[in-house]
Amino acid sequence: MSKILDRINSPADLKELNIQELSTLCAEIREFLVDNVSKTGGHLAPNLGVVELTVALHYIFDTPSDKIVFDVGHQTYVNKILTGRKDKFDTLRQLDGLSGFPKPYESEFDVFNTGHSSTSISQAIGIAVANKLSGSPNYSIAVIGDGALTGGLAFEGLNNANIKDTNLIVVLNDNQMSIAQSVGGLSTYLSKIRSNTFYNTSKRDIKEMLKKFPLLGKPIHKIMHEIKTFFRTSLMPKGRMFEHFGFTYLGPIDGNNIEAITEFLERAKNVNKPVLLHIVTRKGMGYEYAEKNPNKFHGIGPFNKDTGETLKASSMSYSKRFGMTMCEEAEKNNKLIAITAAMPDGVGLCEFKQKYPDRFFDVGIAEGHATTFAGSLALQGYTPVFACYSTFLQRAYDEIIHDVALQNAHVIFAIDRAGIVGQDGETHQGLLDESYLNSIPNMTVMAPKDGNELDEMIKFAIRETGPIAIRYPRDGYTDEIKTRNNIRVEKGKAQVLKKGKDVTIIGYGKTVKKAEEVSTLLNQKGVHAEVINARFLKPFDNKTILDSIKKTKFVVTIEDAYLKGGIASNVQELIAKENDIKSLFLGYPDEFIKHGKTDEIEKIYKLDKESVFNSIVAMMPSKKTKKKTTKKEEA
Amino acid sequence: MSKILDRINSPADLKELNIQELSTLCAEIREFLVDNVSKTGGHLAPNLGVVELTVALHYIFDTPSDKIVFDVGHQTYVNKILTGRKDKFDTLRQLDGLSGFPKPYESEFDVFNTGHSSTSISQAIGIAVANKLSGSPNYSIAVIGDGALTGGLAFEGLNNANIKDTNLIVVLNDNQMSIAQSVGGLSTYLSKIRSNTFYNTSKRDIKEMLKKFPLLGKPIHKIMHEIKTFFRTSLMPKGRMFEHFGFTYLGPIDGNNIEAITEFLERAKNVNKPVLLHIVTRKGMGYEYAEKNPNKFHGIGPFNKDTGETLKASSMSYSKRFGMTMCEEAEKNNKLIAITAAMPDGVGLCEFKQKYPDRFFDVGIAEGHATTFAGSLALQGYTPVFACYSTFLQRAYDEIIHDVALQNAHVIFAIDRAGIVGQDGETHQGLLDESYLNSIPNMTVMAPKDGNELDEMIKFAIRETGPIAIRYPRDGYTDEIKTRNNIRVEKGKAQVLKKGKDVTIIGYGKTVKKAEEVSTLLNQKGVHAEVINARFLKPFDNKTILDSIKKTKFVVTIEDAYLKGGIASNVQELIAKENDIKSLFLGYPDEFIKHGKTDEIEKIYKLDKESVFNSIVAMMPSKKTKKKTTKKEEA
Repeated sequence: MSKILDRINSPADLKELNIQELSTLCAEIREFLVDNVSKTGGHLAPNLGVVELTVALHYIFDTPSDKIVFDVGHQTYVNKILTGRKDKFDTLRQLDGLSGFPKPYESEFDVFNTGHSSTSISQAIGIAVANKLSGSPNYSIAVIGDGALTGGLAFEGLNNANIKDTNLIVVLNDNQMSIAQSVGGLSTYLSKIRSNTFYNTSKRDIKEMLKKFPLLGKPIHKIMHEIKTFFRTSLMPKGRMFEHFGFTYLGPIDGNNIEAITEFLERAKNVNKPVLLHIVTRKGMGYEYAEKNPNKFHGIGPFNKDTGETLKASSMSYSKRFGMTMCEEAEKNNKLIAITAAMPDGVGLCEFKQKYPDRFFDVGIAEGHATTFAGSLALQGYTPVFACYSTFLQRAYDEIIHDVALQNAHVIFAIDRAGIVGQDGETHQGLLDESYLNSIPNMTVMAPKDGNELDEMIKFAIRETGPIAIRYPRDGYTDEIKTRNNIRVEKGKAQVLKKGKDVTIIGYGKTVKKAEEVSTLLNQKGVHAEVINARFLKPFDNKTILDSIKKTKFVVTIEDAYLKGGIASNVQELIAKENDIKSLFLGYPDEFIKHGKTDEIEKIYKLDKESVFNSIVAMMPSKKTKKKTTKKEEA
Repeated sequence: MSKILDRINSPADLKELNIQELSTLCAEIREFLVDNVSKTGGHLAPNLGVVELTVALHYIFDTPSDKIVFDVGHQTYVNKILTGRKDKFDTLRQLDGLSGFPKPYESEFDVFNTGHSSTSISQAIGIAVANKLSGSPNYSIAVIGDGALTGGLAFEGLNNANIKDTNLIVVLNDNQMSIAQSVGGLSTYLSKIRSNTFYNTSKRDIKEMLKKFPLLGKPIHKIMHEIKTFFRTSLMPKGRMFEHFGFTYLGPIDGNNIEAITEFLERAKNVNKPVLLHIVTRKGMGYEYAEKNPNKFHGIGPFNKDTGETLKASSMSYSKRFGMTMCEEAEKNNKLIAITAAMPDGVGLCEFKQKYPDRFFDVGIAEGHATTFAGSLALQGYTPVFACYSTFLQRAYDEIIHDVALQNAHVIFAIDRAGIVGQDGETHQGLLDESYLNSIPNMTVMAPKDGNELDEMIKFAIRETGPIAIRYPRDGYTDEIKTRNNIRVEKGKAQVLKKGKDVTIIGYGKTVKKAEEVSTLLNQKGVHAEVINARFLKPFDNKTILDSIKKTKFVVTIEDAYLKGGIASNVQELIAKENDIKSLFLGYPDEFIKHGKTDEIEKIYKLDKESVFNSIVAMMPSKKTKKKTTKKEEA
C-alpha cells in the first residue's frame, strides 16, 4: 500500500489531509525516522517527540511566510522531511550531506542557522517585530523545550515578548528533559502544572468544586480556607507565570495528540497578543527503546533498530577519563565539586553524580550561572570543576572574566569537545576557546596530549591556584591508562618530546600526536624535527620554544583551533623581533567550519598527517642549496 | 552636637543603637553621602535609596561571617561608610583611593569584586552551598535591584536557588529603575505587586472581602466570579512567581522605613528555606534633586549640592555624536532600528527614542537578547544598531558568534566606552573587545579617530552587509562637526595620514591622535614618522601597513586595549616572515587595570604622549651608527 508520506513534498501537500490521515502520516514519519537514523546516527528521541507538533504547525500555518523557529534545532528532522528533503536522509550529518540542524542554505523552511540553546524566543520576537513594522500579518512561532527554558537568554526573551500588536506564539514543548532530566525551580513549576489534568475549562472546575465544598453549613473561615486552597492548587497556578510576562497561556495539552494540537494551534492563531502554548510530549515517542531511554537516544550513533543496541562500542574518550579522575580525586579531597550545565553524561560525570551527590550540581542549560556559582564556591575555599563543551562555554565568557578571573578564583574549566567536533558542524565546533581565553588576565590554559596527561593536568589544576582551563577533544585516544604516570606537569612548561635540528614542530593537545607522526615521516626524508608538546597556551613557555626556534630557524605550529589568537599568535609574538625564521602556522582559517567526519574536515583544511608532512617538506631547502636560500624560502 | 555616625567604625557599633537612633543615623549618612559625592562625583541616587537597607542588614546580621553580596556594587557606599572606610570618602574613585565598587582587597565586608549586573544570586548561592557543605550556620544574602533582575544570569540564579537546607536570602530592592526605567514583563509584574498596599496578612484581607461580598443572596456563579477575581487580583499574585522558584516570598515592604525593614529581615532569618524579601525603595531618597531626577544622579560628576547643578558642562562625546548621526540616518532610512540594554542616556539614544519610538528598543539589562533579537531583525531586512558599552557587550559573546556572525546578519554594534574608562575601574574597562571580535568569522571591526570619522563609519556600516562593530572611547573629542565630511571609509582600508621614512606609527581609534602628536615631537628630533590610521582591525589592511613597515623597518603600534589579540597581534602575524624589522607594541599588559583618571592610567602604563615619544627615541639609532646597529637595537 502506498504511503501518505510518499505524497508529501511540501507543506502544501499536508493541507489536503484530514485528521485521520495526519495521524497515519505521523506513524509513517516515525518509522522513517527510526529506519534512517538507525543507519546514520543522529538526534532520534527529540524528533520522535515532535512529530505531531511539526505536522500540525505546517498544517495550521502558512509556512514559510509564517516562520517556525526551532530552539537548538536538533529536533528539525521532521521539518526537513516535510519540506522536500526526505530523499536526502541517507546523507544526514555527512560531509556535503544534510545537516542535523536547521540551515537556511538548505531550505527557506529553516529560519536560522542554530545549534545552541535558548535563542528561539528572542529570534521569534525579531521576526514578529519586523512583521509588525512592515505591516505583514504573518505569524512568528518559537518552539522551545522546557530544558532550553532554563537558559538565561530564554528568560530575557520572555521578559521582552510583550510587544503590542505582534503575532508571536511560543510553543513550550515540555518533555521534562533537556538532554538529561530538567532541573531547577522552573522545572518544578512545570511539573505542578502538568500534574493537573489536561486542559479543561474553569466552568467545569468550579462546578466540581461546588460539589465538594457546599458553601452552607460550615464556618466561614473554613470555607474560605478551602476555597483558597482550591485556587492555590488548581486553577490559579496554571501558566500564571507566563501570563505575568504578558502571554496568554493555553494548555497544558497532549502534544502527541494530533487532534488536540491542531485545535490549540488554531486557537493560538486567533488570540490578539503573544500566546504561550504549553504542550506535553514524550521524548522518543513511538520507539520503545527511545521511550525507555531518551537520554541514550537523544543523540546516538548508528544502532540496530530491532534491538536498540548501538553498533559499535565507543572507544575510550577523554570525557570518560575526566570522570574517572574526578571520582578518584573526590575521594581524597572533600572540597572538590563537579558542575555541569545539563550534560552529566556528555561530560562524563555520571559516576561522580552517583558517588558524590552533595558535591555534584547540574544547573540546567545555564553556563553563566555555573561559572559565577563556581567562582563563588572557590572563594569560599572549595575547588569547583565546571565541565562544559567548548562551544557552550562561549555563553559564559563574561562570567569567566568578571566572576572568576577578576576574583582570581580557583575554578577549573574542563573544556570538552574542543576543536573540530565533526558531524554536528558549524554551531558545535570548539574553535574559539584558545583565542578568547588567551587574552583574559589571570587565566592558566592548557591541553593534554593524551588521556594520561589529562589525568595529570587535572591533578595539577587541583593543586594550583587561580582560574585554570583544560581543553580536550571529542575524539577518543588510544594510550593505556597508567595508574601512576611519569608525567610531571609544571606551570608554563612545555615538553620537548624529541630533539632535532632542522625544524621545530609545536603541537598542543591532540595535535601533539600528529606532530610526532609527521616527525617520523620527516625522519625518513632525512629531516630531523624537534617536537615540542606546548602543554600551556598560557603562560606560554617562551624560553623553551624560542630556544628551539633559534636553533632550527624553522617553526611549525599545529593546532585544532582558529589560527588567530592561539598558539600561532603566541609564536608570532615571540618571533616578531627575530630574523631569518621560517614559519608555518597550521590551524583553521577565519570562517565557520561545516559538518563532516573530523578526519574529512582535517583533510579539507590540509591538517591531516600527509598534508602537514607535505607542507613542511615543500618548505625545506634542498640539501645543496640549503645555506643560500634560507631567507627567501618561505611559503 | 556630636553625630551618631562619628561613633560608627564597624557594624558592631550599630548593635548598641535603638530604632530611633538608627533612623537618625540614616539621616546623617544621607547628609554625608551628598556632601562627599557632590565633591568627588559618583553613584549618588542608588546609595541614597539603600541607606536603611544597608544599616538594617548590618544591624540584624552578623557580618562579615554572614555575607552580603551587593549586585553590580555601585550601591555599596553605605556599606563602606559603616565598615571603617568613611574617612577615605574624599578619595572616592580616585587613583589609589577608595573604589566606587566593592573590592575584597579594601575590606572583608566586600565579598566580591563586581561591577557588572545580575551576578549576585548565583554568587550568594555559592556561599550558601559552601556554608551548607562545611556545616556553617551563617547567612548568605544577595541584594539585587529590579533592573538587575532583567538579566538572564539573575534568572538562572533564581532557577537554581531552591537547594535544601541553605540560609539564602535574596533582597529584591525594587526602585522601578535600572539606570533608566525598568522594562519588560517582569517590571510590569512587580508594579502589579506594588500596587497592592504594603504587606498585610491574608486574614485581614479575607475579612475585608467578606464584608464586600456577602456569600448569601447572590447566584452561586456570581459569587464564584467575585471570589475568583478577588484572588486573581489581590492575594494570589503577590510574589507568587518567586514562590514558583522555591522561595518563601515576603513583602512588599517599604524599604526606606527602618522599622519595617529590620522587622522583616528578622523574619527572613527565621524561615528555613530560601527567602525572597521584596522591598520598595526610592532612588535618590532624601535629596530632592536626586529624587526628582534619579537618572541624572545615578552616576554623576561633582555638583553643587545646594542647586543640584553639575559643575562643568560635559564636552562633546562620541555617544552624543553617535546619537545625532543615528537620528539623521533614521530620517532617511525607515529600516534603521536602535537597541539599548537599559542605557538610552549613556549611549546617546534619548533623542532617537523620542523621535522614533517604534524603532527604538530598550530590552533591559539583557545584552544577549539584544544581540539575538538584532540578528533576527537583520535577517528580516532591517538594520539594527545595538549600542552597548564594551565591557557589557562581553555578556553577548556567544550571541554575537551564534546568532549574528554565523548568520552573517547585518547587525551594527556601536561599542561605547571602549578602552580605558577611568574612574569606574577594573570591571568597566573596555579592553577586551578587540581581542574577542578579531577571531570571530564574518566580523568587520573598526574604530574612528574622531567624531567626524565616527559619523562616516556609521554611514559606512549602514551601507555594508554582515556584522560590523565600531568601537569608540568614553573620552570626549575636540574636532568640529563637519556637515559634509571629506572622509571616505572603505572596507579594510587604512589611511596614511603622514608620510615618513624612519618609523611607521600605527594608531587605531583614539590613539591615532596620539600617533600624530608623537610624530610632531619626533619631527623636532629629525625623525620622520609615517603615521597610519588603521581604521579597520578586521579586515586588516595588510598591504598598506606592510608596505610602510618594509620601507621604514621600524613599526610602532599604539592601542587602547590589551596587547594580546588586537592591532599588535595583527602586525606580529604580518611581520613573522620579515627580517630586520624593529618593533614596539604599546597597549595594556595582561592584568586587570584599576581605577583612576584615564590620563593617570595612561601615564602608569607609559601610554601618554611623552612616554611613547621617549620609548621610540630610545629605539632610534644614533645617526652615525644607524646602519650597523639596526638588527640589535630592539628594546
